[in-house]
Amino acid sequence: MEPSEFRRHGHALVDWIAEYLSGAERYPVLSRVSPGDVRNGLPTSAPEHGESFDAIFADFERVLVPALTHWNHPGFLAYFASSASAPGVLAEFLAAARNQQAMLWRTSPASTELEEVSLGWLRQLMGLPDAFEGVIYDTASISSLHALAAAREAAVPAVRNDGLAGRADLPGLSVYCSEHAHSSIDKAVILLGLGHRALRHVPADDQFRMRVDALQDAIAKDRAANLIPVAVVATAGTTSTTSVDPIREIADVCRRESIWLHVDASYAGVTAILPEYRVHFDGWEHADSVVVNPHKWLFTPMDLSAFYCRRMDVVRQAFSLVPEYLRTAEGSRGVRNLMDTGIQLGRRFRSLKLWMVLRHFGAEGVREVLTEHIRLARLFAQWVDEDVEFERLAPVPFRVVCFRARPRAMAAASAAELDTFNEELLAAVNASGDVFLSHTQLNGVLTLRVAIGHLNTAERHVARAWQLLREHTEQLLSLHR
Amino acid sequence: MEPSEFRRHGHALVDWIAEYLSGAERYPVLSRVSPGDVRNGLPTSAPEHGESFDAIFADFERVLVPALTHWNHPGFLAYFASSASAPGVLAEFLAAARNQQAMLWRTSPASTELEEVSLGWLRQLMGLPDAFEGVIYDTASISSLHALAAAREAAVPAVRNDGLAGRADLPGLSVYCSEHAHSSIDKAVILLGLGHRALRHVPADDQFRMRVDALQDAIAKDRAANLIPVAVVATAGTTSTTSVDPIREIADVCRRESIWLHVDASYAGVTAILPEYRVHFDGWEHADSVVVNPHKWLFTPMDLSAFYCRRMDVVRQAFSLVPEYLRTAEGSRGVRNLMDTGIQLGRRFRSLKLWMVLRHFGAEGVREVLTEHIRLARLFAQWVDEDVEFERLAPVPFRVVCFRARPRAMAAASAAELDTFNEELLAAVNASGDVFLSHTQLNGVLTLRVAIGHLNTAERHVARAWQLLREHTEQLLSLHR
Repeated sequence: MEPSEFRRHGHALVDWIAEYLSGAERYPVLSRVSPGDVRNGLPTSAPEHGESFDAIFADFERVLVPALTHWNHPGFLAYFASSASAPGVLAEFLAAARNQQAMLWRTSPASTELEEVSLGWLRQLMGLPDAFEGVIYDTASISSLHALAAAREAAVPAVRNDGLAGRADLPGLSVYCSEHAHSSIDKAVILLGLGHRALRHVPADDQFRMRVDALQDAIAKDRAANLIPVAVVATAGTTSTTSVDPIREIADVCRRESIWLHVDASYAGVTAILPEYRVHFDGWEHADSVVVNPHKWLFTPMDLSAFYCRRMDVVRQAFSLVPEYLRTAEGSRGVRNLMDTGIQLGRRFRSLKLWMVLRHFGAEGVREVLTEHIRLARLFAQWVDEDVEFERLAPVPFRVVCFRARPRAMAAASAAELDTFNEELLAAVNASGDVFLSHTQLNGVLTLRVAIGHLNTAERHVARAWQLLREHTEQLLSLHR
Repeated sequence: MEPSEFRRHGHALVDWIAEYLSGAERYPVLSRVSPGDVRNGLPTSAPEHGESFDAIFADFERVLVPALTHWNHPGFLAYFASSASAPGVLAEFLAAARNQQAMLWRTSPASTELEEVSLGWLRQLMGLPDAFEGVIYDTASISSLHALAAAREAAVPAVRNDGLAGRADLPGLSVYCSEHAHSSIDKAVILLGLGHRALRHVPADDQFRMRVDALQDAIAKDRAANLIPVAVVATAGTTSTTSVDPIREIADVCRRESIWLHVDASYAGVTAILPEYRVHFDGWEHADSVVVNPHKWLFTPMDLSAFYCRRMDVVRQAFSLVPEYLRTAEGSRGVRNLMDTGIQLGRRFRSLKLWMVLRHFGAEGVREVLTEHIRLARLFAQWVDEDVEFERLAPVPFRVVCFRARPRAMAAASAAELDTFNEELLAAVNASGDVFLSHTQLNGVLTLRVAIGHLNTAERHVARAWQLLREHTEQLLSLHR
């Protein structure tokens, strides 16, 4: 592509994206296409001759745009709502053009050192001690995988070289997390060869927090059965309700028992930037590792997961492997090469967007947005609490509200009928195109979730969700009558 | 950021990037900063108040640009040279703004189905059969990790649930690759809990290809010792020399022995787009899994690794895990949810850049660039072969040339002296700023590599590298005299 052509298309994209970032609301949040629409709308093989960017972009608008579910839309209130802010998007544009690959310091001093700088900034903002060294991975799944791999390295003699199979010297292993922990912990345990049954899903209390007494019992039982406890994963912001496990008490258990403590704060961790919310994270300074995801609640585009570890030497011990073709003089002089702390050799210039986002917003700007999101969640919770047709199903520590419709007219309904009613309600609200909510299950009950997190989500979006929920509840009731 | 402000900064970046994509040659390829320069050039904590994008970009230019090693520069001839083409960069810009997260079909029908479409196009171009289902991961490290995890799932009874440790029923396991295989295979074997010593680095022949007789011996020996062979990794394009293991013969062994065959074609795989080069990949249609990296030699920006698998059901069996909060109606109707074939739940809209690149260049355009790169590599190899002061150290199947200086004036030099001479030569050439070469070790000898792969690399860049090598050889000899 000629520079003049790149300029023309680039400028057009800037205008298009500018409109999108401020005007996403003209699209339905949840895509309305049917399975197969995209596949059937495109040729089954690559073109023989190159095509113009205009033709490519026309197909993007015709076939792909209707098939987008708009994560970057202020009405997106599902899962963990997030946002790609303008400075984050510009940073990704720059990063793509530079195509840095920071496996070694020398292959990208900028990316290597900016990773240290920006993770240092974020660490300080959250009040984590200096003893935590940081590294950026793509996702929390990979961060927690590294945490558990390091825990395995620390707990199992010679595991790097000898592995786990066929070793008469080795008993079974076990890992502990709450029954509300994220499925990425299950996947990591499976991948590491510990076996899914090595994962103890410790019961939670009535506020969905891991029960420390149950954790202690599980550890004692495993020790009695001669198993090796490898790690405890405490979650700060579980996926369903954003509940926070009692980190300090869990940390005490881990210290006493000499077990690796990993804190999965991928969702809620950034809230520690608010001094009044730091209490939720009390004790995480004693963890061995912590994961926090700026792409969840810190306005950076996918993907960027920040992994902090007190014992990064163990991660290196687990994974450092320097073939001749990657040996450098700097490496032997103690300069940090990021490939030594990860299973992925290739790494994009992800720190650029974190750095640009933190500078653009400043600590003050970040606090303002987080505070507003939390205010909106409390407001929504209050509406739910005050309406006799609805009930709230979990506390609201951050910005996610769990609730369901429980109409008085259905007082005699069975549990299954109430679940079906709420599924229908959810589908009707999402079909509006104005907002998109998701669901979970709590104590066997189908639960609706409102998750606030997009930068531009304002009171009117939350109010619209509430209005739709009430209207469709009435409509569904009249249909059922 | 206001839309007008985004427009202003976006347009400025487009012009800046346009100049960069065509004028990267004004920068030294290899960064000249010293360790700590970036860190020391930036504040140690985040700003309290937000800053203007102009101020942020000024620091980007002042501190970060000098610290970039320019992967997207036509003089980059190190490692595996790659390029971020203009359509790929524009696609990444769009993808960042849309912030898709394609864990479920419904959370991004566009990304989910475009992944299938674009991987189908690439598969057909390379002549791989339809039986291979594709999925995009970030890096070849992760692709090969999934391959070996699936192989473990297929070979070890109940490994998902029971794991590997503390099982009296389970003997040791083993995996086979060439002594020239990539270090990501070692890391995957360690991560999976097989233990590094489970990996047999099978000796290569004098052309750096795995010796099939040695592979058969290793398998027989392990079977006799009651070990379970889990997988063989054949490499198509090894990292040092780009040698290709004899895939068909290895596939025959794997079929006979019922062992999973993974083909690591992350570097060379796309060359199968050239009909006359498909012979190198003869037999890969019998593999269980294949990895090919469009971010290496197909002009897409980092990161995009294409994983093809004949037995994707085994990958699903290993990793599919659907918690309530991710259950969807489509999922129960057989629609593909990409989270089921991976350990990472979060996934960016990576297919967009592959699709835009394939359409922009067309099959014809891709073939032209690959053919030209191979021509340049052969030309360079010819210069080396014709110069009595240099020697070539490996065949050139694709676009990487392995060689060293071996000046007649040093006929009496020791092996160590020749290595030192070549290290000094490499450092001198790289210090020029015009080109950047890397090294490896072959048969114990320090080996220089010229790897052609950037879209804009032309004969003059390769000629400049050769000129610098000859000039600095003379200069070093005169210094040593």
